[in-house]
Amino acid sequence: MDILIKNCNLISMDTSREKYEKNIDIYISNGKIVKISKDIIAKEGTKVIEAKNRICMPGLINTHAHLSMSIFRETLDGYTLQDWLNKKIWPMEDKLTKKDIYNASLLSCIEMISTGTTLANDQYFMEEETIKAANELGVRLQLTRTVNDVADLGRERLEELENLIKEYNGKYENITLNVGIHGLYTTGKETLEKSIELAKKYNLPIHMHFCENEKETLDIKKEYNVQSPVEVLEKYFTNTHNILAHVVKVTSKEIDRLSKMNVSVAHCPISNLRLGCGVAKIQEMKDKGINVSLGTDGQGSGSSLDMFDTMKFASLLQKGVFENSKNMESYEVLKMATINGAKALKLEEKVGSIKEGKDADIILLELDTETCNPKGNIFADIVYNAKGSNVKAAIINGKIIMEEREILGINKDEIYKKCEQIIERIQE
Amino acid sequence: MDILIKNCNLISMDTSREKYEKNIDIYISNGKIVKISKDIIAKEGTKVIEAKNRICMPGLINTHAHLSMSIFRETLDGYTLQDWLNKKIWPMEDKLTKKDIYNASLLSCIEMISTGTTLANDQYFMEEETIKAANELGVRLQLTRTVNDVADLGRERLEELENLIKEYNGKYENITLNVGIHGLYTTGKETLEKSIELAKKYNLPIHMHFCENEKETLDIKKEYNVQSPVEVLEKYFTNTHNILAHVVKVTSKEIDRLSKMNVSVAHCPISNLRLGCGVAKIQEMKDKGINVSLGTDGQGSGSSLDMFDTMKFASLLQKGVFENSKNMESYEVLKMATINGAKALKLEEKVGSIKEGKDADIILLELDTETCNPKGNIFADIVYNAKGSNVKAAIINGKIIMEEREILGINKDEIYKKCEQIIERIQE
Repeated sequence: MDILIKNCNLISMDTSREKYEKNIDIYISNGKIVKISKDIIAKEGTKVIEAKNRICMPGLINTHAHLSMSIFRETLDGYTLQDWLNKKIWPMEDKLTKKDIYNASLLSCIEMISTGTTLANDQYFMEEETIKAANELGVRLQLTRTVNDVADLGRERLEELENLIKEYNGKYENITLNVGIHGLYTTGKETLEKSIELAKKYNLPIHMHFCENEKETLDIKKEYNVQSPVEVLEKYFTNTHNILAHVVKVTSKEIDRLSKMNVSVAHCPISNLRLGCGVAKIQEMKDKGINVSLGTDGQGSGSSLDMFDTMKFASLLQKGVFENSKNMESYEVLKMATINGAKALKLEEKVGSIKEGKDADIILLELDTETCNPKGNIFADIVYNAKGSNVKAAIINGKIIMEEREILGINKDEIYKKCEQIIERIQE
Repeated sequence: MDILIKNCNLISMDTSREKYEKNIDIYISNGKIVKISKDIIAKEGTKVIEAKNRICMPGLINTHAHLSMSIFRETLDGYTLQDWLNKKIWPMEDKLTKKDIYNASLLSCIEMISTGTTLANDQYFMEEETIKAANELGVRLQLTRTVNDVADLGRERLEELENLIKEYNGKYENITLNVGIHGLYTTGKETLEKSIELAKKYNLPIHMHFCENEKETLDIKKEYNVQSPVEVLEKYFTNTHNILAHVVKVTSKEIDRLSKMNVSVAHCPISNLRLGCGVAKIQEMKDKGINVSLGTDGQGSGSSLDMFDTMKFASLLQKGVFENSKNMESYEVLKMATINGAKALKLEEKVGSIKEGKDADIILLELDTETCNPKGNIFADIVYNAKGSNVKAAIINGKIIMEEREILGINKDEIYKKCEQIIERIQE
């Protein structure tokens, strides 16, 4: 079905256009954005979405998530990170069935759509269940089976990942894959090298946690016998496209070195704060030319997949913690949440901006809530005052996934209930 | 009209009760909480509010706001603080009429109620218009006419403040007053001493900005010729009850000294970040026994009056910036947003917790949104995942002010429109 969005206020994130344009029509056909113009006439049979007073922008892109961890939301209070992992998360993860992963992923897909995220970069296990959930709701994902040497299972993990790649690479329009390495501190040289070979063999990006906290940084130095974790990247991660999540504990000199590599950073401010890791220097990274995108991390530490919260934190932390109110102005933050995310995932030819020829991943916002009036600067209104619930409609790959906040084809309450039952069962 | 809240899940913030109790009834009569118990039978003519699956908690208390600044929302992007004040805010403020103040205050009252705040501590000018707005909606305020020596107007300001006190002190149940001193860097010794005399004469708290940023701290040292701004407090602010807003730029030694005084801190994390001020050390203040409450500041720098956002920032900043995930756990944050706020405003005998004999300032929350499932720890669910829009009902002083998110007796769109017209007019 063709779609015509009428009279929207467009924030296209396409640098060849104005940053903000009023009363624009967008024609979508066969999943693609075909035409952006004023006064487009709808052909018969076209679904027309009246978007007067609504902001039309690219769907948000979450570049670091663990969708199946939705069930671990708010299990963290009162624990240190290590105790939470040892005593809660890992024992619970051991009990997860395929069906659990499917339902937990469905919950995350609901959360993504309802807060305006159309593409997430996922790293976990039993990913075929996550693919099933994403396909059921029409969500776009890039994903991977995480590889590490925990419990000496590196070889099995690599096999599982290659099987996943063989089965799903190119199979679905909305699903792409990458090579997920958990982290340098949990992955030995041999498994690391084989993972990187896999990325090269299938021409896929690599997605890895990197320098999330002080302890990890120290552990990497020990494991690899290096002065800096960046040395390991410089040695092994050449000729690959690398997405590094977190990157909190790096020095200015290390940022200089990262800026010379093919590296994108997935900044997860909320999770980093919650776990007491610190605040990543993303203004400095941006100034040095590194592509910085945004992520929520899993709900266990990130609380939710709401990228509006993440945008607000990402902006305000750079201003406040580094004591410069000009840091990370709101339009820059919108870039991080859209086109920079697409670049991080090597998908900038397909998504990340509203542009003729690109896939139609689009959200419609209405700033009609009590905290959004009067309106000042439209980009600031979005970053600081809009909430996920201001998203009224979501289109992914040219299909309407949510309309007037109703996600089509799913009973949300049923999924909530199933997920409650999962966490009750595995917590015992 | 008597009110009976039936079957709520109670977070009373009353230390003599359990932190969380299920299926509780609350009977309200003549503005007061009369009975908290299971299975209370409604007398005839009682308004019954069915609150099954809803959380009942004290209305939130915002201890630092400038309600009339709602119209300046998102005018800040692209400016430094000093340029914003000089070129935008001050010229615009000069054009504000009484009617503007009234409408801008109405907008803030709408924002407060709709995000669960039942009491705010306001500091601005033409406060009689703000009182009118608060009375129209039934909102509780503590407020003041700000005193300073800017443009050598200290004497006039003091007169205006005393007139305000004379007219409104004790006049309305929902309106209390305090003595607002803008800051030590804008107020000379004579005006300062007279302000403090006024506080003592009428037995009112003092509300003052204090050490918001580095420059202010330096300016105070110069103005008062002291080694530390705390010296000025120790000299002048004895035998007064003092609410200090911000308190970002103080050392550990200065926190020690503050802890020996009658001082409450109004922590405004969002505004402090936005203006590049830094992050106040509120975990340390709390550990040293200082009463810390929460504020939003005006919307010009704080973006909104949504205290749920403020709670999330207040907690996560202490964990992340000071790199300790055990800092500011969620129940502590709820205390800051309720009972600590009441203590700051010397109103803890009346509000801040749900307790028999106290005034009925109560909100009902429902965690029914996509980012609130499954539920983990109830306090964490509220601090990290609830939004202002999860507040379904608000009762202030025993009157229902909002029911099923409808604020009674006001046309919101009309107020939005009027405020839009104000900012358009004064921006010219």
